[in-house]
Amino acid sequence: MLNVKITGHGIYIPPKVETAKDLAKKIGKTEEWIINSTGVNERRISDIDVDQMAAIACKEAIGNSSQPDLIINASGVPKQTIPDTSVFIQKELGFSGIPSFSIHSTCLSFLTAFHTASSLIASKEYKKILIVSSDRGSIGRNFSEPESAALLGDAAAAIIIEPSNDSYLLHYQMETFPEGALFTQVKGGGTYRHPDNPKTLDQDHYFTMSGPNIYKMARKKVYNMISKSLSKNNLNVKDIDLVIPHQASGTAIKAYSKFGGFDDSKVINIISNYGNCVSVSIPLALCIAIKENKLKRGDLGLMIGTGAGLSVASCIIKF
Amino acid sequence: MLNVKITGHGIYIPPKVETAKDLAKKIGKTEEWIINSTGVNERRISDIDVDQMAAIACKEAIGNSSQPDLIINASGVPKQTIPDTSVFIQKELGFSGIPSFSIHSTCLSFLTAFHTASSLIASKEYKKILIVSSDRGSIGRNFSEPESAALLGDAAAAIIIEPSNDSYLLHYQMETFPEGALFTQVKGGGTYRHPDNPKTLDQDHYFTMSGPNIYKMARKKVYNMISKSLSKNNLNVKDIDLVIPHQASGTAIKAYSKFGGFDDSKVINIISNYGNCVSVSIPLALCIAIKENKLKRGDLGLMIGTGAGLSVASCIIKF
Repeated sequence: MLNVKITGHGIYIPPKVETAKDLAKKIGKTEEWIINSTGVNERRISDIDVDQMAAIACKEAIGNSSQPDLIINASGVPKQTIPDTSVFIQKELGFSGIPSFSIHSTCLSFLTAFHTASSLIASKEYKKILIVSSDRGSIGRNFSEPESAALLGDAAAAIIIEPSNDSYLLHYQMETFPEGALFTQVKGGGTYRHPDNPKTLDQDHYFTMSGPNIYKMARKKVYNMISKSLSKNNLNVKDIDLVIPHQASGTAIKAYSKFGGFDDSKVINIISNYGNCVSVSIPLALCIAIKENKLKRGDLGLMIGTGAGLSVASCIIKF
Repeated sequence: MLNVKITGHGIYIPPKVETAKDLAKKIGKTEEWIINSTGVNERRISDIDVDQMAAIACKEAIGNSSQPDLIINASGVPKQTIPDTSVFIQKELGFSGIPSFSIHSTCLSFLTAFHTASSLIASKEYKKILIVSSDRGSIGRNFSEPESAALLGDAAAAIIIEPSNDSYLLHYQMETFPEGALFTQVKGGGTYRHPDNPKTLDQDHYFTMSGPNIYKMARKKVYNMISKSLSKNNLNVKDIDLVIPHQASGTAIKAYSKFGGFDDSKVINIISNYGNCVSVSIPLALCIAIKENKLKRGDLGLMIGTGAGLSVASCIIKF
């Protein structure tokens, strides 16, 4: 158990809406196909870059409170290779001197960062940590791969955590299975498919995924993890006040009630309006739940999801 | 203070040597110019990718001991954008199910990861953490920018940390100054200079740095940090048994004795043989110091350096 409290939260939802109808033309599918196969009615497209998006969410999270003493960028795709994006976010915030770094585990970056930051707070290394996820998946869409292109959307979300006596991270677990490493990829951007490499193809700079393979591999692992996490803490499904899942796909979210036993009304589902926002899906769902009073002080929340890896992580918090 | 012990260490030094003479032709400078301006007589060039390099170092660090329960990739440049490199390292190691993620703060990635992992150990979230840095800077060299192209080299280094009663991380500090964000860059690889962006240039995929600007900004900040870190712990320069600095440049390393007051013999200097290995310089210097018995059990070691950001970090350990 790590004693931390979420004391601030903020989001950035780009104003530009792209509907299934708008997208249908680009990917050669119908509006119905998009909605039925992904669950995404519309998504947001950002005209500003990830650091600026992040800074807007951070400013809301910080409000009139004091500066954080650590900034962690927990996003899926960086602004550039070097420096890491946290530096550009701090620059946009107008701060200087605050230690900053990035944590990356694709769609699970936020959970990994939340767990890590909670440990840093609990071990008294920092007192106020800003965690921000910002992804502009729209840039990485491959319109020749409609299944993934129809899923992605842009957004940013940030939280502040501080020491606490009454709120805590109750339990965290993560597992990474490299057997699924090739199920979700952006092959470019690093040493493997560097632009100088004659093997590098244009499509290597786009997002590619095998949804059915991921779903097949993930479903069992996710439910095993939920069962283990709950039983380890003498909890059952009914004790969880709110499930805050990664918005992987409409089908993946519905599985929490269909197979997981959670009541539909207890599972945050924002995919129809925002799509899969990569690392931002979980913190965006969390911040929206807090804003809409669906997650109240004292509630038990379960943040859970899968990420490229294939990784699975779950985190039970007393909010 | 965080109670952790470095219980394993391993390195990978690629067999292929590129001397200053070899490089001189490529960058249009003389052998003497290279050696005098960077301090690098030769560097290693890897024919295998960062995940394979990392795995070799990890295997040496793990030896015959049990599997780690967390793998942190702490490198400067990834293999690919998604998944993060830790997944591919775990794959190369033949493991499955071990939580894995990446921490990125360029040349300080190892220190950031070491501090974070120490916190995770101290707060009992994990019991045995593998931290590995692996960089193939040679791929990102811009031969039209001789100053930086002459610095970079390839290597990997890994350590294992576990709970301890007699060894510890005594003090860690990091500061990030975004005023220096543009001093060290690889502009490509993310959303900013995506290959689809008409503004993206070939050189955006290479490393670029302004050595004089960094040195000017960093020297004062580094020494302020050393002074603060020592005095906060009632230590003076003579109490530090070994300085393990980032191998930024020959000049930067010599500054620790010239301006910092540390005896030359107490500052690990491996730049002439290996160059600046980005994130790997600090852990490589650490592992070599352990192997050569320059850092002994009970010794106080100071790991210190600068990274793109501009960030400065220092870490005092009782080994």
